[in-house]
Amino acid sequence: MAIVGAGSIGLAIAWRIARFGAEVVVYDPAPGSGASRVAAGMLAAVTEAQFGEEALLPFMAESADAWPGFARELEQASGHHVGFRDAPTLLVGLEDADRAEIDRQAALYRSTDRNVQPLGGRASRKIEPLLSHRTRGGVLVPDDRAVDPRAVHAALLAAAEKAGARIRTEHVDDLGALDADKIVLATGCGSARFGLPIRPVRGTVLRLRAGDGQPVPAATVRGYVQGHPVYIVTRDSGEIVIGATSDERGFDRTIGTAGAVHDLLRWSIELIPEIAEYHLEEVTVGFRPTAPDNLPLIGPVDDRTIAATGHYRHGIALIPATAACVADLATGQGDGFPKAFDPLRFKESE
Amino acid sequence: MAIVGAGSIGLAIAWRIARFGAEVVVYDPAPGSGASRVAAGMLAAVTEAQFGEEALLPFMAESADAWPGFARELEQASGHHVGFRDAPTLLVGLEDADRAEIDRQAALYRSTDRNVQPLGGRASRKIEPLLSHRTRGGVLVPDDRAVDPRAVHAALLAAAEKAGARIRTEHVDDLGALDADKIVLATGCGSARFGLPIRPVRGTVLRLRAGDGQPVPAATVRGYVQGHPVYIVTRDSGEIVIGATSDERGFDRTIGTAGAVHDLLRWSIELIPEIAEYHLEEVTVGFRPTAPDNLPLIGPVDDRTIAATGHYRHGIALIPATAACVADLATGQGDGFPKAFDPLRFKESE
Repeated sequence: MAIVGAGSIGLAIAWRIARFGAEVVVYDPAPGSGASRVAAGMLAAVTEAQFGEEALLPFMAESADAWPGFARELEQASGHHVGFRDAPTLLVGLEDADRAEIDRQAALYRSTDRNVQPLGGRASRKIEPLLSHRTRGGVLVPDDRAVDPRAVHAALLAAAEKAGARIRTEHVDDLGALDADKIVLATGCGSARFGLPIRPVRGTVLRLRAGDGQPVPAATVRGYVQGHPVYIVTRDSGEIVIGATSDERGFDRTIGTAGAVHDLLRWSIELIPEIAEYHLEEVTVGFRPTAPDNLPLIGPVDDRTIAATGHYRHGIALIPATAACVADLATGQGDGFPKAFDPLRFKESE
Repeated sequence: MAIVGAGSIGLAIAWRIARFGAEVVVYDPAPGSGASRVAAGMLAAVTEAQFGEEALLPFMAESADAWPGFARELEQASGHHVGFRDAPTLLVGLEDADRAEIDRQAALYRSTDRNVQPLGGRASRKIEPLLSHRTRGGVLVPDDRAVDPRAVHAALLAAAEKAGARIRTEHVDDLGALDADKIVLATGCGSARFGLPIRPVRGTVLRLRAGDGQPVPAATVRGYVQGHPVYIVTRDSGEIVIGATSDERGFDRTIGTAGAVHDLLRWSIELIPEIAEYHLEEVTVGFRPTAPDNLPLIGPVDDRTIAATGHYRHGIALIPATAACVADLATGQGDGFPKAFDPLRFKESE
């Protein structure tokens, strides 16, 4: 069996297939150099919900619920920590209009049947004392947790190899040349070369570090700041990840990063003034692999090929559910996949 | 003869002494790793003038006037370009209060007898079309030019070595152990270990890059933005340097850089909105070697030792004048130095 793409999705599938006992080779010239390196790692079945993308919600919920066990299993298998952090997500608005936007979205959040608690400004600051006193409150989502995607990728690489998967640092263009009865395309933003309708949605993410003794946010903080969404994810290592801008400028990693860094710092400092006191360590620009309807492409493309791409903003959150579904398809243990994710849904009927 | 410190000041002195025919050894464990690497390179005899530091102005003027010839000579001697840019400086205010601050300082600027032209907002934008339409105008200073300090340092290193100076990558603590009849301390922020009253004034500087076809500022733009000073220096290479914050936090290179980057981007984007479209390439934190009265320490410390440090914000601008003065002192060709810079001025009389 062949998997094209050694990002976190591809490796999680490879790990599962290898544990099943099948032979699996993963092809990638630079494993982990794609979205896995940039992603913040929120496992947000609730606060990533968007009107118009409701078809994603059950899969997000399934994957979020699988994550704690998946993380434990992965840490055991790999011997690596994955930075799973059992802290809640606090979604707050800075101004009245921002709070109103959250209240509007809360209707969608509540439709998920997950734990969503409305919070006033004072209650928000009690949970997260670093929030600006201007904060207008919002919602508390105890089960929207986070992991460290770089640690997850390193762990998946180790676990997949220990389970017997082989990694070949080769670029694949011609699927016909692969010696495999089944091929999984976990090619992220590189999927367009195989005819899949995937475009890159660019995002800038900052990595900051708190100095010794500096206070850091305990919760994952998401906010709307004068209409702009921003999130702040703290790692146990003292790293603070701030994201993310969203624009469509092809694969350019440079144009406009000055403005993106400015915006992310401004919005996050407005929410949590202490952020100004941290060290800005790293600016990364990544590309979210995105289908025309923002939903993943998961399922058979033809008799030999299975797609596992188009995860847009949700790649890390959807690792466990995608790996389970696609490994079952590839090994013949199952034939189910969410119909809304059918990779062929954009083809005109012949 | 020994020079401690292979920053741009130390090397310029070494170059001059070596050309005079004297033997000179420069000691520095990491040449060019200090302020020379961070500085923006403005040669601003006018727009760096500050009330209370008037004693600096004649020396600044002398050095600014020497720079064009010094740059030519250095390029010939080294075979390196030094990025001398014959563009004017435009100092503008964003809001009425900022403009009023510039008008207040213009009285000092005019006392320098250098070319200073008042400008309205519209005239400013005619000279620099990238300025925000909100700009309230200020002054045009045709002779406040700029160089590229990293290029200058590389050129000085080459020129000094070609002239016969030897560079030893050694740290010096004990001047008594040096085999030299004269010693120059060009030790920047490392001067305190020799008993000189120098403290580090920290500054953050950004380096951005414009993409192909993106417009860049033609002038050096300095501004006051809601009371905050900021400058933007364009290099012919397409690099845009934005500086500089100023705070006193010892030698810490990390604490608060997030806030510093935010502030510099905010102020500069307010002045020149196009800056948001550039790529943020590099964030550097440096330390300005600063005496208690912000004036340099230039002159004899004792019979054997000469100070050439404490250049604060003006190290690059003051290279030619400092090198001429200190090389003359060291070789016995002259004994003059500005009395306001006397390194012993802070000693209590015995």
